[in-house]
Amino acid sequence: MPPLVTLTTDFGTRDPYVASMKGVIHSRCAHAAIADLSHEIPPQDVFEGALFIAQASKWFPPGTVHCVVVDPGVGTARLPIAARARGQIFVCPDNGLLTFVTRESPLDEVRIITNKQFMHATISQTFHGRDIFAPAAASLADGAAFEGMGERLNALTLLEIPELRRDRPGVIGGIVMHVDRFGNAITNIHRSDLPDRRDIQVHFNSEVIESISEAYGDVAVGATVALFGSSDYLEIAVHRGDASKHFDLRRGSRVEVRS
Amino acid sequence: MPPLVTLTTDFGTRDPYVASMKGVIHSRCAHAAIADLSHEIPPQDVFEGALFIAQASKWFPPGTVHCVVVDPGVGTARLPIAARARGQIFVCPDNGLLTFVTRESPLDEVRIITNKQFMHATISQTFHGRDIFAPAAASLADGAAFEGMGERLNALTLLEIPELRRDRPGVIGGIVMHVDRFGNAITNIHRSDLPDRRDIQVHFNSEVIESISEAYGDVAVGATVALFGSSDYLEIAVHRGDASKHFDLRRGSRVEVRS
Amino acid sequence: MPPLVTLTTDFGTRDPYVASMKGVIHSRCAHAAIADLSHEIPPQDVFEGALFIAQASKWFPPGTVHCVVVDPGVGTARLPIAARARGQIFVCPDNGLLTFVTRESPLDEVRIITNKQFMHATISQTFHGRDIFAPAAASLADGAAFEGMGERLNALTLLEIPELRRDRPGVIGGIVMHVDRFGNAITNIHRSDLPDRRDIQVHFNSEVIESISEAYGDVAVGATVALFGSSDYLEIAVHRGDASKHFDLRRGSRVEVRS
Repeated sequence: MPPLVTLTTDFGTRDPYVASMKGVIHSRCAHAAIADLSHEIPPQDVFEGALFIAQASKWFPPGTVHCVVVDPGVGTARLPIAARARGQIFVCPDNGLLTFVTRESPLDEVRIITNKQFMHATISQTFHGRDIFAPAAASLADGAAFEGMGERLNALTLLEIPELRRDRPGVIGGIVMHVDRFGNAITNIHRSDLPDRRDIQVHFNSEVIESISEAYGDVAVGATVALFGSSDYLEIAVHRGDASKHFDLRRGSRVEVRS
Repeated sequence: MPPLVTLTTDFGTRDPYVASMKGVIHSRCAHAAIADLSHEIPPQDVFEGALFIAQASKWFPPGTVHCVVVDPGVGTARLPIAARARGQIFVCPDNGLLTFVTRESPLDEVRIITNKQFMHATISQTFHGRDIFAPAAASLADGAAFEGMGERLNALTLLEIPELRRDRPGVIGGIVMHVDRFGNAITNIHRSDLPDRRDIQVHFNSEVIESISEAYGDVAVGATVALFGSSDYLEIAVHRGDASKHFDLRRGSRVEVRS
Repeated sequence: MPPLVTLTTDFGTRDPYVASMKGVIHSRCAHAAIADLSHEIPPQDVFEGALFIAQASKWFPPGTVHCVVVDPGVGTARLPIAARARGQIFVCPDNGLLTFVTRESPLDEVRIITNKQFMHATISQTFHGRDIFAPAAASLADGAAFEGMGERLNALTLLEIPELRRDRPGVIGGIVMHVDRFGNAITNIHRSDLPDRRDIQVHFNSEVIESISEAYGDVAVGATVALFGSSDYLEIAVHRGDASKHFDLRRGSRVEVRS
């Protein structure tokens, strides 16, 4: 069974950055299988990267090594880390990329990558993906001991996450966290935040959706629908349309559930 | 030899949908090799997906499992299916995605996927790619019996395909089926539709191409050329240019061959 | 250890071109691992392809087979070739794609691919990627003898590369070679061209950068920085911004270093 290394970056694929990382991984661990998760995280958008890897990683088997590089602070004091959770390993900069992973699964242990054995001989100050994260991930996939990466990290860097507002009775105030390729606007209101889903309305801009559906196809083509999507968060969609464009919904747009 | 699972979707890679499917496949069949065919099928465009998988799949070896998810009807009554053709297996929604595959190779057998053993324990009504199609494809790659997926499907859903018009003598009326990345406009007129290719002209918009060439380079840079492309369909191209932009050719644009 | 075939093309992934090549490779060499390097080389841009493969390939292990297809001259007299360098093999059209590879590593041997055993039975005049380059690469990965591809090529086609201008004392005149996804403008001025990096200025448009930094984070967010990037070429960047957009820098824009 080949060890599995996944790649999540904001590098796109027009430039040789991802390709270089793949070369480094194959050079250090020739039998590794590499899975591209995404190279289309918006440039330098740590929040989107953090959301992405939390949702994607949970479907992978134990033993997977996730190499995640969205790294606007490359070459500054921010630390390179390796973290263990769910029997998987995450290799990334300590800039908040694991914020949503930790919400779902407590990290078992986090190490600062300082062992030069697991780095390229010379380190570019602009591309740690190639010179630190890829070699560390490949070495871990190849069986290097997690504890050998370096000292423990005490306090993980976390992004500030917008919390739900519950300051008015019967109202839960959330925001759009992510707009997907189909224009579906996915909020931070989880299925478990709404134990009783009868007689509730979803408000955003000056729109109202009168109930929560199960599937996009529960409404007519072109109609607006609110439902709990595949990650169990409330989303606003237009059946076979693009809700984001239609209603100008973006990350940060306010959405309220009223009962 | 690792079993091979290919992925064709309209999910793009900015969202965690494809990544989740890869995790599911690796979890069910750790030794599978996964080949990304495309995640850039235009959103919810079953026609483009159907054309794509027919052209791509025929180059793969027997035993390949193709997982194809362009699924605007997810969560509705449309059925999840597995189909055998050419010694390969196709796993997809029954919404017309196999229309062009069946034109080239008759399907040997189609099963409705109902066996819960080959699905995720809970099924999201918005993402069957992750909860039904990926696990079924992985299980088949891992050796699960095709017959165990579920009952036979009797009537496959097919897209309505525009036929060639031959109502005027000496004229074959076709349309553009697909515009590729280079702006080449690929029609539904097959090489075999034109047994005699001497003294024929290609008409579109108010343009005329006076003969059919063999290669783009048969005409000067910037000149327009008609030729039978790599799938043996007539295409209109501009040598080192973009015919689609230059002549406003799109899917559905009319093209006539006159002799 | 599976043999490794990498793919670099300008095909994008909306069309079935890359997928067809993958099918051909898996059909000829079922145990090969395929690594996508890029399919987003700008259409027909041999210069960008040549730059890309030189930078990406050097990170791969010996034994890797690189299949590189940016091929505006497909179907014309330009030759299909296989070249050995650094213990790796490059399979591509002889149109200049190896220009930058040869600058870094002399080619050990170049062969013209003429042996029909390593081609598809019929050859489309519009898609040699599928019918010549993919089968040749797969056969080489599968152990076919390099010498069996065909006769030696004597003179490799090379792109004309803009050289540095040094006609004024204390001034090195270069140009932007590539703009990356982050808007960083990467020049043809190499670290080794500037043995003394004290007291130098970088000029472009009517801008001046007064010194060379080590990392993007050496300047404030939004400030302009010049540094030697991950490939040791001078680049102009805006910290967490887009220098290309901000200063209208493109391939060919002039950049001078003055001391």
